[in-house]
Amino acid sequence: MKRCLSGLAVFCVALCAPCQARAQQASPSEVKTLSPSGAIEPTGTWSLGTRAGDFVFVAGMRGIDPQTNTLASGEEARVMQAFRNMQLIAASEGASLRDAVRLVVYVTDMFRYRPLVNKVQEQLWGAGPYPPRTIVEVDRLNQDDIVEVEGTFYAPPRR
Amino acid sequence: MKRCLSGLAVFCVALCAPCQARAQQASPSEVKTLSPSGAIEPTGTWSLGTRAGDFVFVAGMRGIDPQTNTLASGEEARVMQAFRNMQLIAASEGASLRDAVRLVVYVTDMFRYRPLVNKVQEQLWGAGPYPPRTIVEVDRLNQDDIVEVEGTFYAPPRR
Amino acid sequence: MKRCLSGLAVFCVALCAPCQARAQQASPSEVKTLSPSGAIEPTGTWSLGTRAGDFVFVAGMRGIDPQTNTLASGEEARVMQAFRNMQLIAASEGASLRDAVRLVVYVTDMFRYRPLVNKVQEQLWGAGPYPPRTIVEVDRLNQDDIVEVEGTFYAPPRR
Repeated sequence: MKRCLSGLAVFCVALCAPCQARAQQASPSEVKTLSPSGAIEPTGTWSLGTRAGDFVFVAGMRGIDPQTNTLASGEEARVMQAFRNMQLIAASEGASLRDAVRLVVYVTDMFRYRPLVNKVQEQLWGAGPYPPRTIVEVDRLNQDDIVEVEGTFYAPPRR
Repeated sequence: MKRCLSGLAVFCVALCAPCQARAQQASPSEVKTLSPSGAIEPTGTWSLGTRAGDFVFVAGMRGIDPQTNTLASGEEARVMQAFRNMQLIAASEGASLRDAVRLVVYVTDMFRYRPLVNKVQEQLWGAGPYPPRTIVEVDRLNQDDIVEVEGTFYAPPRR
Repeated sequence: MKRCLSGLAVFCVALCAPCQARAQQASPSEVKTLSPSGAIEPTGTWSLGTRAGDFVFVAGMRGIDPQTNTLASGEEARVMQAFRNMQLIAASEGASLRDAVRLVVYVTDMFRYRPLVNKVQEQLWGAGPYPPRTIVEVDRLNQDDIVEVEGTFYAPPRR
């Protein structure tokens, strides 16, 4: 009997193991955390983005080069890299730049960096239409960076 | 005839009264305003949060203790309280921290408060996954506070 | 035969022309870019707003008078104009102020402009309910303006 119970216990543990793993890895949340290959690596308590329903939310992106994991050099190149980082994460869920529903752009010098943001957006979006944008000058960004862009996208899953 | 018209007018007013009341009290809006018990009390022209469709939007939360209605003392405790305030409002609509699709964190000193935000998030989210985050240093928050966190959540109503 | 091919080519071009025009004007994106009549004119790489699914996203609005295309004079009038600009864009998609799910308000002086924002919101929303709001003081807005408001709205299309 004891042996039987012990056998049952082993059986139960074996049965539950995958469930536990599943519970830890894929929580009951319907929010999908994004970590596409080729993207920068989050180094702290944040992720690159999420999909929830038809929307894709990308974390504020700065001009970190995913190849070297360091800030791109040159101000315009840095800004372009920030947008490219956002673009790659959105694209991993089927959202193109055209699918952006809003951008919030944080710069540390409005006069100096807003024209660069405009220039980069012209290159990326061409003749438009452009997404609605909010642009503000803040005191400081992480790593004393110059520009951070936060994008929200709409990309209903293909059924 | 005059009497008849006048009677008709009274009838119309009587008929419209409940409609007007309804229009003022319960607007046709499908946005649900949240005011869960145990949460802080909004003191101005804002509410704690809304549900709209599958999403829950929480107002920027600071470290106000709902018990005393004053700012929690101690920087780390203050930051934790801000996140707890957000958590309670989201939970009232069935959204856990795991259901956060994005956080925007405003601090008044990046070097000083970002590490505290990271620490608090580690305690709350454990091994993750963490939501995408945008963190910026601004000039000032209301009440000269140190950290404000704004969370968006995904929580489809249970059908 | 050559004539036949050439005729076929003309036919194909004629056939494709409207498709190309359509591809440029209405991209395969399901994001609708908003440009309601009576609104301010975007002058750069941004649009006034988007609709995506049941949500309407309005760009950060400042107190530019659409009649004159210049900033409204007087601080309170300026703030009111910013909210009115947001309101007009939201209304073009059937969203009233009551349908706002979140506001983010950027001011360049918390002590000076927050009370004006409160006053304007009281006039616009009356007894409420008010939308959840995040308000922060930033270093600078475009055109050295004083207040910018960014609104998100919920307005399921009438079926």
